[in-house]
Amino acid sequence: MIESIINRRTIRKYSDCSVSKEFVISLLEVASRAATMGNMQLYSVVVTQSDEMKEVLSPIHFNQPMVKTAPLVLTFCADFNRFTKWCEERNANPGYDNFLSFINAVSDTLLLVQNFCTLAEDEGLGTCYLGTTVYNAMQIIDALKLPKLTFPVATITVGYPLEVPPQSDRLSVSSFVHDEFYNDYDSNAINTIYKIKESLEENQHFVRINNKENLAQVFTDLRYTKEANEEISDVLLDVLKRQHFL
Amino acid sequence: MIESIINRRTIRKYSDCSVSKEFVISLLEVASRAATMGNMQLYSVVVTQSDEMKEVLSPIHFNQPMVKTAPLVLTFCADFNRFTKWCEERNANPGYDNFLSFINAVSDTLLLVQNFCTLAEDEGLGTCYLGTTVYNAMQIIDALKLPKLTFPVATITVGYPLEVPPQSDRLSVSSFVHDEFYNDYDSNAINTIYKIKESLEENQHFVRINNKENLAQVFTDLRYTKEANEEISDVLLDVLKRQHFL
Repeated sequence: MIESIINRRTIRKYSDCSVSKEFVISLLEVASRAATMGNMQLYSVVVTQSDEMKEVLSPIHFNQPMVKTAPLVLTFCADFNRFTKWCEERNANPGYDNFLSFINAVSDTLLLVQNFCTLAEDEGLGTCYLGTTVYNAMQIIDALKLPKLTFPVATITVGYPLEVPPQSDRLSVSSFVHDEFYNDYDSNAINTIYKIKESLEENQHFVRINNKENLAQVFTDLRYTKEANEEISDVLLDVLKRQHFL
Repeated sequence: MIESIINRRTIRKYSDCSVSKEFVISLLEVASRAATMGNMQLYSVVVTQSDEMKEVLSPIHFNQPMVKTAPLVLTFCADFNRFTKWCEERNANPGYDNFLSFINAVSDTLLLVQNFCTLAEDEGLGTCYLGTTVYNAMQIIDALKLPKLTFPVATITVGYPLEVPPQSDRLSVSSFVHDEFYNDYDSNAINTIYKIKESLEENQHFVRINNKENLAQVFTDLRYTKEANEEISDVLLDVLKRQHFL
């Protein structure tokens, strides 16, 4: 079993050690061995190393400090632009300005992301996955000059770890694996599945300091609210239209 | 560098050796160490081992033989159902029936998929990623009894390899890595990037037997046509509505 996967934790604090861009690109090269739809490789990666561009990206990622403190910031983009340009150059009629093509490109991109992270972490690098990328996709598109038929899917900050944080909890594997059919969750199953997570001191702490009744309310009322999700969903769909995927 | 990633190839022919379901589940457990949005683990995996269910899934995957010949078939699903049920049990108001939540769950799912494949391949198993999953999502939803707020993202067939196929080609890493900004592709860049792929004997063979002018036309006219993409996009958007993600 690959030890670096077993021991994985998100790394948000990086040492002053620089990370060679060439080395990271060599990891991306190996990562591109991941499965890809029809071998089309529907992705691009924008590598940010300059302080100027980190300054631009930082507020877009809600000023999470990793954007400025990590030696390298990688923005992984779904990309049907390159493939479409190839078709246009070859008197072929591309039909990739649609939602299925978006999903296919997103899939290719995320397989590349995870393969890269595995390789990087196995080499002793630390990574942090910034979920904020899709929240402010339009601003990232403008900042990185992403053309139509591309879309930023994930941002990974990369550096040598300056911390060994505790591993975060995970649900038991039986919570998410189903035998032959999806076995839907009744009240008892939900109680069993979330019991450990709810009992963790750090989570009880979040509940207390936010004056909530329980951990689920911390998620619904503070972290990922219905209002914000719906607002961002509307924006996202607009961005997909602007990028010609809808 | 992880050798099994460097040497990866898709495996479509499997030996008669059975694969222990418990072993695969232990790999899924380790795979769940992948990054996940807010530690919500927005995925489920349905494990198919029975001949009856392989018979049901086979036509949905356009009768690709791996579905019946692989010892195990795993359907990885984006899942906001479990988390939403937890919220409902806890008097918390879930707001995850929207497009952003769909994208977040798809992301979690694909990181899990790739992590699982890496672990499986490192253990000597062979995998094949069936991109057909999203093409017939509705039929898979019905076959596996997937509830609303779930969506089948990827299917992986798993078994011990009975072949060592040649590795498929990949674009040079410089084709998809960009420095600070997206560097859009001009005619010269496109010609350079696709030159090797176009020159491969197997690809020239496809062009000849299909009476096409070039490889790009094989993709646009036969493999991934505009008409099919648009038709399936409409279906996909309908499925997202039915699953309450739109």
